[in-house]
Amino acid sequence: MTAVLIDGKAVAARVRATLKDEVAAFTAATGIQPGLATVLVGGDPASEVYVASKRKSSVAVGLADLHQHLPEDATQQQVEELLHRLAADPAVSGILLQLPVPAHLDAAPLIELIPFEKDVDGLTTMSVGLLAQNKPGLRPCTPSGVIELLDAYDVPIEGANVVVIGRSELVGRPVAQLLVNRNATVTITHSRTKDLAAVCRTADIIVAAVGVKGLVTADFVKSGAAVIDVGIHRGPEGLSGDVDFAPAAEVAGFITPVPGGVGPMTIAMLLGNTLRAAQLQHSLASASASASASA
Amino acid sequence: MTAVLIDGKAVAARVRATLKDEVAAFTAATGIQPGLATVLVGGDPASEVYVASKRKSSVAVGLADLHQHLPEDATQQQVEELLHRLAADPAVSGILLQLPVPAHLDAAPLIELIPFEKDVDGLTTMSVGLLAQNKPGLRPCTPSGVIELLDAYDVPIEGANVVVIGRSELVGRPVAQLLVNRNATVTITHSRTKDLAAVCRTADIIVAAVGVKGLVTADFVKSGAAVIDVGIHRGPEGLSGDVDFAPAAEVAGFITPVPGGVGPMTIAMLLGNTLRAAQLQHSLASASASASASA
Repeated sequence: MTAVLIDGKAVAARVRATLKDEVAAFTAATGIQPGLATVLVGGDPASEVYVASKRKSSVAVGLADLHQHLPEDATQQQVEELLHRLAADPAVSGILLQLPVPAHLDAAPLIELIPFEKDVDGLTTMSVGLLAQNKPGLRPCTPSGVIELLDAYDVPIEGANVVVIGRSELVGRPVAQLLVNRNATVTITHSRTKDLAAVCRTADIIVAAVGVKGLVTADFVKSGAAVIDVGIHRGPEGLSGDVDFAPAAEVAGFITPVPGGVGPMTIAMLLGNTLRAAQLQHSLASASASASASA
Repeated sequence: MTAVLIDGKAVAARVRATLKDEVAAFTAATGIQPGLATVLVGGDPASEVYVASKRKSSVAVGLADLHQHLPEDATQQQVEELLHRLAADPAVSGILLQLPVPAHLDAAPLIELIPFEKDVDGLTTMSVGLLAQNKPGLRPCTPSGVIELLDAYDVPIEGANVVVIGRSELVGRPVAQLLVNRNATVTITHSRTKDLAAVCRTADIIVAAVGVKGLVTADFVKSGAAVIDVGIHRGPEGLSGDVDFAPAAEVAGFITPVPGGVGPMTIAMLLGNTLRAAQLQHSLASASASASASA
């Protein structure tokens, strides 16, 4: 293998270590301990594991754990009431509704009850709009993790030709916006794209987020390009991504493994968003207080 | 010239004629006449001309003219109160705050007071987010006009390689989103793009919205490509666009002139948005009424 391996575990560990210092400094300066309210409805085993991991990671960087658990048979109204209460509670910096919710609930309107300044998943329509307008707000975690990995390995983004494979709400679209905001030339591709391999061969950076196992073969990759693999697939030989790793690594200049590439970044970025949410609320409150004082 | 000339005046006239029938049908079916509230603050001469044109065009397709005029020295609070009143008024389908507002006012928070279902300019953060999520909402007028022109001349969008030049909030970014939603492969380029001419030569469709007079020369254009020019520049020889028209028209398959291309589409799409706003509010009201009835 000739490519530099992008070590997501190491980058995520550094992000968390820096964050721990930043949280301590923010708390010392303001008297506010940022807190994350994870909201779990029911007892889906995978969701329980994810939420436990998010809570443990939060505490490790100095965030308050404000977890909320509702029973499996909670009504839409009960979840709404909880989200309204968390939205109004100044001790809650970030709100994360763990998905999926039980089938009798309608997730989309519940997500929209999270105010943009507490939306640490960056999934509400307001957060999506703020990103598309390049205005201050909270950005979705996995796309932010992709940018963080490129920066950690000094892969130039400004002026780079980037091909994003996939146009999902969770990854493809927001990562394209983040890259445009960083002055990359960005091509958004998907299942209707003609000659995807040829389009990808023009790229200095490929972000594969399409959910098709091993789609990106070595002939997609320009010599020296950076290949970021957001896909994750379980097979008999374990986990793998959207990239056919070993052959692609012989052509690429940088490449993320699966597992151990983008995956570890997501929770690290969530923790960072919780601090940023607390900072955003603090600056909004200060602006509002000084506006009242001058009125 | 070998390219087919895309006649924006003719397409806009057809859009308005169809719209007039649709407005009449909606009014007949619901008893609601859709109404557009243009809001003009002060007496900027160019703004007065634009607003007069929008009002006259509205009436011509059967929309109610609900124009509001505030004096030049109106306070931020007075404009806010007017926008709140229009937001709450069921007779108002669409609200358009004519920009620029006088220098002592802050336009950005005023725009955000327009509810997404009345945002006929498609400029609020909510509307931008709904477009980026490909959810129902009102789309900005000039980008929608670009799509309408391509459709009117049967230029295939699905699977086409499209290069958008410019990443403005008003045109570049939203037109890229609309094209992705229509299954095009879209490349967003800008001032930091390397070898823009080479990138553009890969395009089946070029949308020039960068605001640089004559930037797109014939060597940017693949033989037979469609070239849509959103630029508008005033010079000693009259109006011209971002495209060096005469030489580009010898290579392109389709091309818009300036004036008479994209320009005439903007007001036509605004009128269409006002009807769509009325339809959206009607369906939201019906859904809310049936939810109450079943509760």
